[in-house]
Order: sequence, then C-alpha cells, then structure tokens
Amino acid sequence: MKPIQVISKVIPGVNWLKGYSTQDAVADLIAGITVGLTVLPQSLAYSTLAGLPPQYGLYSAFVGGIVYALLGGCRQVTIGPTALLGLITSRHTSLGLNSGPEFAILLCFLSGIVEMLMALLQLGALVDLISLPVTVGFTSAMAVIIGTSQIKGLLGLKGGSGAGFIETISSVYNNLDKVRLGDMILGFTSITILLLLRKLKDVKIRNNKTLSGFFWTVSTARNALIVLVASVIAFYTCDGDSCPFKLTGEVKSGIPDFRLPPFETDISGPLNGTSPTSIHLNFKGMIEDLGPTIIILPVLAVLGNVAISKAFGGAGLSATRELVALSLSNICGSFFSSIPVTGSFSRSAVNHATGVRTPIGGIYTSVLVLLALGVLTPYFQYIPKAALSAVIISAVIFMIEYEVIKPLWRCSRRELLPGAITFILSLLFGIELGLLLGVATDIAFLVYRAARPALCVNKQRTTNGIEYIYVRPNHSAIYFPAIEWVRSGISKAISEHGVAPVLLDCSFLTDFDFTAARGMSLLYKELTTSKIPLFILSTNESIRQILHEASNNSIPVIGLIENLESQLESSPEYEMYFPLVVNHNGHHDKAN
Amino acid sequence: MKPIQVISKVIPGVNWLKGYSTQDAVADLIAGITVGLTVLPQSLAYSTLAGLPPQYGLYSAFVGGIVYALLGGCRQVTIGPTALLGLITSRHTSLGLNSGPEFAILLCFLSGIVEMLMALLQLGALVDLISLPVTVGFTSAMAVIIGTSQIKGLLGLKGGSGAGFIETISSVYNNLDKVRLGDMILGFTSITILLLLRKLKDVKIRNNKTLSGFFWTVSTARNALIVLVASVIAFYTCDGDSCPFKLTGEVKSGIPDFRLPPFETDISGPLNGTSPTSIHLNFKGMIEDLGPTIIILPVLAVLGNVAISKAFGGAGLSATRELVALSLSNICGSFFSSIPVTGSFSRSAVNHATGVRTPIGGIYTSVLVLLALGVLTPYFQYIPKAALSAVIISAVIFMIEYEVIKPLWRCSRRELLPGAITFILSLLFGIELGLLLGVATDIAFLVYRAARPALCVNKQRTTNGIEYIYVRPNHSAIYFPAIEWVRSGISKAISEHGVAPVLLDCSFLTDFDFTAARGMSLLYKELTTSKIPLFILSTNESIRQILHEASNNSIPVIGLIENLESQLESSPEYEMYFPLVVNHNGHHDKAN
Repeated sequence: MKPIQVISKVIPGVNWLKGYSTQDAVADLIAGITVGLTVLPQSLAYSTLAGLPPQYGLYSAFVGGIVYALLGGCRQVTIGPTALLGLITSRHTSLGLNSGPEFAILLCFLSGIVEMLMALLQLGALVDLISLPVTVGFTSAMAVIIGTSQIKGLLGLKGGSGAGFIETISSVYNNLDKVRLGDMILGFTSITILLLLRKLKDVKIRNNKTLSGFFWTVSTARNALIVLVASVIAFYTCDGDSCPFKLTGEVKSGIPDFRLPPFETDISGPLNGTSPTSIHLNFKGMIEDLGPTIIILPVLAVLGNVAISKAFGGAGLSATRELVALSLSNICGSFFSSIPVTGSFSRSAVNHATGVRTPIGGIYTSVLVLLALGVLTPYFQYIPKAALSAVIISAVIFMIEYEVIKPLWRCSRRELLPGAITFILSLLFGIELGLLLGVATDIAFLVYRAARPALCVNKQRTTNGIEYIYVRPNHSAIYFPAIEWVRSGISKAISEHGVAPVLLDCSFLTDFDFTAARGMSLLYKELTTSKIPLFILSTNESIRQILHEASNNSIPVIGLIENLESQLESSPEYEMYFPLVVNHNGHHDKAN
Repeated sequence: MKPIQVISKVIPGVNWLKGYSTQDAVADLIAGITVGLTVLPQSLAYSTLAGLPPQYGLYSAFVGGIVYALLGGCRQVTIGPTALLGLITSRHTSLGLNSGPEFAILLCFLSGIVEMLMALLQLGALVDLISLPVTVGFTSAMAVIIGTSQIKGLLGLKGGSGAGFIETISSVYNNLDKVRLGDMILGFTSITILLLLRKLKDVKIRNNKTLSGFFWTVSTARNALIVLVASVIAFYTCDGDSCPFKLTGEVKSGIPDFRLPPFETDISGPLNGTSPTSIHLNFKGMIEDLGPTIIILPVLAVLGNVAISKAFGGAGLSATRELVALSLSNICGSFFSSIPVTGSFSRSAVNHATGVRTPIGGIYTSVLVLLALGVLTPYFQYIPKAALSAVIISAVIFMIEYEVIKPLWRCSRRELLPGAITFILSLLFGIELGLLLGVATDIAFLVYRAARPALCVNKQRTTNGIEYIYVRPNHSAIYFPAIEWVRSGISKAISEHGVAPVLLDCSFLTDFDFTAARGMSLLYKELTTSKIPLFILSTNESIRQILHEASNNSIPVIGLIENLESQLESSPEYEMYFPLVVNHNGHHDKAN
C-alpha cells in the first residue's frame, strides 16, 4: 500500500482534496461563513442554556468542524453545541460556581469515549430501537422544555435554566410581577422579526435574482443580524449600571488553552444561600454526579447525528465512520474546554441550502469562530440576554412536530401511545426517563407480538375423510413467551371443535426455541393421555431437531400435509376417530 | 341464580363436597397427614432460613391449606412456606431483634395485595416471559445459595442466613477452626440417611405389598423421622448448657393471635455491636426498606405456583382463580403472623404421590399444624439445628438442574446464555438481579430477531424478460428496529446485483409499523432519484394503508407478482431497463 493510500485510509478527509477546484473552494467558503454567522449567536445561546459562561459555546464550535472535515463522510453535517446537549449538560453545571464548566468538559470527554466504544462494539445500531413516534415525542418535548426555559431570559427574570418544565413554569408564574419591560419588548420583537425573516427566504421576486438572493442571505443570517442590531441598541441605550436590558456580560477573550480535561474539581460557592464552602470531588465523585448521563448523552448525540445523515446523506454513509468522527470531535474538543457536541440539524440545513460541496466548509466556519474569539469577544458583552433567548425560541419552536399525529391516528393508533408516553413523561420527569419509557413501550409491544401470535384455527378433512383440527400460528417463530398461549389456543380449539386429531402447521415458521419445544412436548403428553393425536407440520431441519431433543423424539413431525393420513392410520388412536368418519357422499366409509 | 350457585361461584371449593365419598375423605386424610409430617420440619427449617424464630414457619403453614381448599383448583397444590420465599424474606429480617417478624408479616400481606392486583390486571401472563433456561438457571442458583447458607447450621457455626453466596462461603472458610464436632457428625449423618431414605421409596419388594408400603411411608416421612430421632438423641445427651449439638431453642406455644399486619415497627437491638438503640419506622420507612422485594417476591411466588399447576394440573386450570387463591392465602395468613407463602413443589409432589383426591386434604394438614402448635412445641426446642439444615440441604440439592444443558448444547446453544447469565449473576449479585438480567437477555434476543430479519435476495425475470431484484424478509412483520436493516439490505442487493428494479415481497407479512413505512418511503424517494423503481408486493389491507399514509401514496403496492410487468411498463424508467432485456431465446425483444 502506498503512503498516500494509508493516509487516505486513516484520514479519509484527504480524499476531498482530489480534484478540489477553485469553484468548490468558493462554494465551501460561502457555506462556511454562512454557517459561522448562525453558529456564533447559537453558541453563545446554547452555552447559556447549558448554564455556562458564553465563551464555552464558542470553545465548542471550532474543533468539531476541523475533525469532521478530516474524518466525516457527509458534506452537510456541521458539528458543534446543540440545544439538546446544552439542556442535558445543564443538569450538571449548577453544583457550584466554578465546577460547572469542569463537569461539562469532562462530560464532553467521556461522551467521546462512549461513542468510540459504541463504534468499536458496533452499538450504533442501538438507535434503531428508537421509533419514529418516540423520536417525535422526544424532540417535541425537548423543544417545549427548551422553549419554556428561555421565557425567563425573554422576560428579564432572574434564574438560570436546567430546571424541569414544571418548576420553570411555576417559577415564571410566581415572578410575573418582576418582569422587566425592556427585556420583554426586545424579546418579543426579536421573535417576531426572526419568524418573519425566516419566511423571507421563500420570497422569490420574479426576474430579480439579486433581490431574491439578498432576501435569502438576510433570512439565513437572521440570528446574527438580530443579535447585532440588539447589541447596537444596547450599546447606545446602556449607561453604566442603568440599562433597559439584561446583558450577556463579559465574554472571556482568546483561544482556550490546550489542556487535559479536568478529572477532579472543587465545588465552591454559596450552596443553599449559606456562607461559601468548598468540597473537593475526585474522579469517582464526578462520575457519580454525572451518573447515567454518561451513557444517555452520547446515545442522544448519535441519534441526532444519524437523523441528519439520514436526512441529507442517504444510505451510502458508513455508520462506523460517522461515529468515529463524532467521537473524536468530542475527545479532541474536551482538550479545548468544549462542552459536548454533535451534529446540529438547523446548521446542517443552512449548510445544505448554501450549497456546501465538501466538509472542508466546516474548516472555514472554525476559522471564523476562532477569529471571533480573538477579536469580537469585547463586543459580545453588549448582547442582550433577551435577544439570545429569542434566537433559541425561534429555533426550537419548529421542532414541535404534530403533523405525524394525523396519519398515525388514521392507520396505526397504537403507535400514538409510545409517542405520547415519551412526550408527557419527558415534560413531567425529564427527557431521559421519557425516552427510556417510550422505548420500553415500543419493546413491550414487540414482545407482546412475539408472545401472542394470532392463531388461525379451523376444521379440515383428510382425503379419506378423517376430520382434524388445523392450527396455524401467524408469526414467523414460536418463542418462550408464546408457548402457553399456543397450548391454551389448541386446548380451546379442541373444546370448541370437539375431540379430533390436531395438526399444528409450522411450515411458515423459521424458528422454535427450547422452552417452546418443551411446552409442545408437555402438550403432546397431555393430549396423548386424552387419546388425541398431535402432529406438527414442518420441513425446517432446526425445528425438527429441537422438537426431537425436547420431547425425546416422541412428537411426530411430518413434512407434507399429504402424509397426515398415513401417519394417522398408524397411530394407536386411529380406530377411535375412523369409525366416526363420514365421507363426502354421506356414507360411512371404513373400507375406503 | 340460586343461593347455592352464588356460593359455588364465590367459593368454588364447595363443589368438592359434591359426591364427596368416605373413600375420598380417607384418601384426603392420609394425604393430609403425610404432607403434615413433611411440612412440620420444613416449616421450622424455612423459618430459620428466613432468619426468624421457628414458630413463624408453623404460623405460615395452616392458613394456606384452608384458603386453597376453599378457592383453589388443583388438588395437588399445597401452600405454605418455601425455601425460595424464606431466602428472599431473610433479606429484610436482620435489621433488629424484634423487627424481623414484622417485616416478614408485612411482606406477606403486601405480596397478597400485589398478587390480587396481578389477578385483576391479568398480569399473571408475566411469568410467560421467564423461559426454561432462565427458570433452570434461577432454580439452580437458588438451590446453591440455600444449600451453602445451611452449611453454617450443619457445622455448628454461628451466624444466620440471608447473606450472599460469596459472603457465606468466605465466612465458613474463615471459621473452619470453630466447627463443632457433634453438629458436624449429626449433620452429615442426617444428610446421608435422608438421601438413602429418599431412594427407599422406589424399592419394590415383589409379592409383598405391605413391606413396599412400609418402605414408601418411611421414605415419605423421612424429614419428620430424622428430626424426631435427632431430637430424642439431643434430649438424652443434653444436660443443661452442655450439649453436643446446637438446639433450636424455645418455640413459642399456641395459635397466633388474629391481628392486623404491622404497619410500623421499632428497629431495636445492638446494631453494629454498639449499645442498644431503637429507631421507630413508620409504614413509609418499612416500604422503603422492603423496596423492590414487594414486586419481585410475589412474581416469584406466582412463578412457583404456575410451575406446580403445570406439572400436576395440566392446562385446565384458570390462572386467575389460582392467583386469587394464592393472594388470599397470603392476605389472610398475614393476619395470623404468617411469612410469605406459595405452593411448595416438594410437598405437592408428596401430596400427589399419596393419592390426594381434593384440596380438602390441605385442611387436614392445617389441623395437624394447629395441633402441633398447641401440643408439640415444648418438644421442638430439642430439635438440633444441624438436623434442620440437613433437611433443607437434602431438599434443595435435587433442584440443581443440569440435564437440560446437554440437549440445549446439541440443538440451541444460544439459549444457554440467558441460563448461564441468570445462574452466575444470581450467585454473584443476588437472585433478583440474576433473574432480571436473564429475562432481559431473552427479551434482547426477541428484539434482535425482530430487528434483524433474514433477507432472501435473488435476481428474477418477468415473463417478458426484465430482470429485477427480488427481496423477501423472513419475518412476519417489519417494525421500527428492522427498517434500517431492510433498507441497507436493499442497497447492498443493488450494489451486488447491479442496477435493476426492486420488488420487496411482503406477501408473507402480517404487519408493518409507521416507522418502517416511513423508512420505505424514504428509500423509495432515494431510489427514485437514482431512477430505480421500487415495488412492494402485498395484499394485506392494513399494510397497504400504512404505506399509503406514510408515503403520501407514492410507493406502488401491487397485489400479484404477475402485475409487476404492467406496472414496470407504465413506470417512467421503463425504457431504461427494457433495452437491456434479453429474452429467453437470447434475442433483444423490444416488441415483445
């Protein structure tokens, strides 16, 4: 293998440079800058959502772009901070004043490790367990939770995010008298303008491509524009401490140091309003505080990434390669004080719409973020919090999905249940529990289907007129949870149709497990005691073997339904059923 | 409805009295007394296993028999204390000297309530989820844990039961120098005699029914005999405090008071070896201490009962009636200071072997236990603990099952995994976790099967010679976890067999869910972009409707494979595939 092949194997990103033309570069540059104009305000906002100083959002927005350009496979994906991961991270950042970022950075590092393990163990397929109704319920609940968490910022009320949906609502309600007029006006105006500008994208002026293009650009850069205008207003109206808006406050300037993620921390600051205390937490203590989030956050990150790849990339992508790219974005990011990152749906859509050609566009975005960290941070302190809240609300409001309810109601109502469970429990008890119980509902349904196969039961006759009960399970396999059901189904069939030989048609089955085979063996013994012959119809070799093993070769398995007659004739109970036989002409027909 | 019908509906037990002859009564009396001779030593032993004074075993052994005679449906079932429930109860009886029985009695009451809820909600079917390998692994682990827990009693070592397998083993090992010779000799002799007497049952003396009958009686009453002989020896060898054996000690005499189960308690006694303290626990505190045992214990009790009914009663029993009988045995029992009870496999086997005719036999057993409580208790104090340990060990040793491993190895190796997981984790981390993870392994397999249906893929031709890729999933339904797999299977098929129209044969499928239908719709769009027509073959109306709803009626669903040709001819890509067609004669055949 040539050195260049080795490099392109280890770093698939170098392949993008093959035939990379000036046109490609220009397209990627435009897309990169456009995404950058979206990621700058979003980073500041999602960092606040995560309960952290705004610069951490920027720290999280440049590593992913570079890593993904080197390793990723889908040109539209842009990796960085997202609302969902910000929300989950916020659970662990409110312990003490200084410990917040350290928990977030450690979580970023550990998420990368877990994602790497998922790639190594091929566990990416776990996201297959999340059905569409659960995804919709989960995304909608998340949007509602994030949206309400921003109401405080929008109204100029005190208090951070990270609390549950119910607490936030009641806290806002109890503090309605403390609403600040300036923030409220700015917030609602911003939302209105953002929603209008969003529509502007679709306005096509006939015969005027320049104007259409201008509209499109303004619409796409709307977040940056609103933040810019709001900051300019704040800059001119604020005078020292008197200011109509709550501002972001100082944003630390400069590129973050390259250093190990923190494996221990001090929780400090006035806890519960008492005098300042400080508790040292070692790695074990931090892990205990993060708890199941260490698993849940990366699984959700992977789910988000898979959703984007599905939407833009089609079926041609390697799931493992995407997982490795995501994992290394988090691991490398954690060395630059990043909070957990994943693909952002909204920014990927912007990327797609601006006509990005390769993931190299992400590098241009990263450069823009680094420039902002070096040059723009002094101006970020004037950004009103209400404007950032408006940016978040306008983004998540479109994630509430209800279109899927109608077709589900029409054609598959039972699937509304996992969706509803996910949505409601997410709001009441947190998105992790909601997601978990939504998936559990779906899995319970799968188990139920395997446990309760429909049985097709009727009475048939052999060619020489012996009546028998024909039973066919309507499932591809009979496993342990189904066997009691099949047994009692056969017992019911006998009490309904009268005593007659029984044929269990397993010719459509592909599998039988030992518990089921042993159950059939017990049923065979029971029926034999009552002088009722039982036959199983199957040509599947593994089914025949397992029935043989589980019943000491006693259950007769026949390969062709035509053989039933001769098998019946050789059974000791033959005479019992035969005299009852009336042939098609209505005569007793013993001599056949 | 006549009054008698109402009574026989509410208390089905009165039906046993219809045509109850003297012969029936004699048979039931003999069986009842024989079971009584087994239940007396077992009650004392299982009560000790549960970490309680011996009389509580007797308190638990008379209510079940009466309640089951009134409500139960299977003549062989005998309800009372069992080794499994004793073991689980023991977790909660070691908090303080006086609190033990109160936790056990409350657990009995709550188990009855949970069993009643299971009956009302028809949750008895939950035991269907426990497969044969898991049952075997669980029972074997339980036998090993109970067996080792009795080694201390057998060797005269200090310390109760209730600890885990590992702790018990290491504690015995560390105290080997404290082994008491008298207990050890008595214990091992008892086990040897018990195992020999067990064999005696099968010794048939030709032409001597009396001797055979005598052997059988001795064998069946072996537990009572050993305990009796050991007690007599102890009575004559013990002199005040000097005694070669550890004795049971005083057993409280008299029938227990009828009173409410305890809803609060004081934990008292020297905790952690410090000076005596007392903590008051209210109902909530007791519930918190019992924790998940409140659910797990009744589920295991039901499982035990179902296993016995299956073994002796056949398929004719009503699961709900059995559940109600079990539930009321526990609820009523808890008013007489009973610990949790369920059907005992060993005693039911004795009942069956002695030829019991109706559950009325259980009433005779109950009378015998009540007599023992009134008259025999003064003598019970001389029973050596080693003899009781021997009784338990000789009972559980036969519950270790390994016969099932061989057929599983031969025909279905993957089923060894849930069994092994259950067995090993039960020993290492307790039977609850072992059972739970064993069942989880089985369910994971069910989900895996639903998620990864085998795809049958090949290339076929229509009658006019157009080649198409034929894909048939080998499962009865396509649900959310499978759709990505099916999609990538079709993509792979196209890259293997070359570009050609695709037919997904769903004619064997009975179900499709919305996630899967939406996935097919996405695949259809993707393939359409690549000018590859996709058709689905199905006559199932609900599948057609869900595909219609999920794809806005875009995916063509055909009912007969013969229609594929005309459908292909009307597709816009027809010309693309048609010119490539070579008919069976090897000629291009455009005119057909």
